[in-house]
Amino acid sequence: MAITIPEVSIRRLSTYLRCLRQAEAEGQEWVQSSDLARTCGISGSLVRKDLSYFGEFGIRGKGYRVGELSKAIEEIIGINEPIRVIIVGAGNLGRALIHHLKEIPYFKVLAAFDRNEKKIGKRINGVEVLPIGEIEGFYKKHAPQIAVLAIPPEGLQETVNLLSRAGIKGILSFALQGIKAPPGVVINYVEIASEIEYLAYKIKKGSVA
Amino acid sequence: MAITIPEVSIRRLSTYLRCLRQAEAEGQEWVQSSDLARTCGISGSLVRKDLSYFGEFGIRGKGYRVGELSKAIEEIIGINEPIRVIIVGAGNLGRALIHHLKEIPYFKVLAAFDRNEKKIGKRINGVEVLPIGEIEGFYKKHAPQIAVLAIPPEGLQETVNLLSRAGIKGILSFALQGIKAPPGVVINYVEIASEIEYLAYKIKKGSVA
Repeated sequence: MAITIPEVSIRRLSTYLRCLRQAEAEGQEWVQSSDLARTCGISGSLVRKDLSYFGEFGIRGKGYRVGELSKAIEEIIGINEPIRVIIVGAGNLGRALIHHLKEIPYFKVLAAFDRNEKKIGKRINGVEVLPIGEIEGFYKKHAPQIAVLAIPPEGLQETVNLLSRAGIKGILSFALQGIKAPPGVVINYVEIASEIEYLAYKIKKGSVA
Repeated sequence: MAITIPEVSIRRLSTYLRCLRQAEAEGQEWVQSSDLARTCGISGSLVRKDLSYFGEFGIRGKGYRVGELSKAIEEIIGINEPIRVIIVGAGNLGRALIHHLKEIPYFKVLAAFDRNEKKIGKRINGVEVLPIGEIEGFYKKHAPQIAVLAIPPEGLQETVNLLSRAGIKGILSFALQGIKAPPGVVINYVEIASEIEYLAYKIKKGSVA
């Protein structure tokens, strides 16, 4: 299959995937674009535009086969096998992330890393906490793809550099502070503060669905 | 000031705000659009396009006054006073969110809510945990604008309905499950799973900056 899809649509594809998996878990076999629009909170016209790339799978009046569509999306995003993830930082956020990501079958949470000696060796929901100093050896053995950062701002940049030297190519950060991306590394930010601001803006504007 | 800015730019404005505040904290007085592009991880051309709405503040060759630009952005987003937030759920994620948001001066974390009797009455970083049953009375007194949901999927929809009946207009959810938005309520999702998938996709594609 050779479909080229714009990056903005790719971002929404993983949202559809979330909704499709929910539908699958609920035993649903068919899904309409209007269902996806409602459960994903994306406008119907955008959903239809994005799904037009998958036109061949749809049947007029019936919609899409849930399993078929989610498999096609998985192939495009490139997650036909579980994404190998490590969590850096085993505090409240790190613990929450481990619990959250362990529930999702297409992630493999390989390990957590911390600097705090008291946390090393513990297990959080079955995930072992290792010393951050061992990241290089760990990378050679297990080749994690993504590091999720759940650490305080102090020493953030050094940790990122350390992860990059070990071989990590993708980093997800919850920190408010910007990080300088080492060459060859992609950093994404989960900006909780911005999401809240944007919500406040939408409420103020009265643009309520 | 009557500036109309498209919604996609508004989303980026709060990212600029994060970077501007960091610059402010570091004692920086002037900022160039290229600095913002680098620290925010947004392409230079997008930053220049977004900031063109604030052209009157910029000085060629010097850039923007940090304080002036952030104040103008705050006014447009509508956060010239702190956003009143409550956290629903006082588990790992709830605790992490309280610590995270308490660090940000333009948020006021009014209280946390939980169902678990053992957690009620405790304080997390100075924020009291109240029984979720008290939300209606609490709303009348303190009028929180945004509820951040940090609760398990069980009973998610009922909690949302409860918050909506109390008067809450904006909800931020970390759950994978879709929620039916009650009339007049805006729900935004922080999709950690999607962010990781998108990172994995970018790495696979080799679109590394």
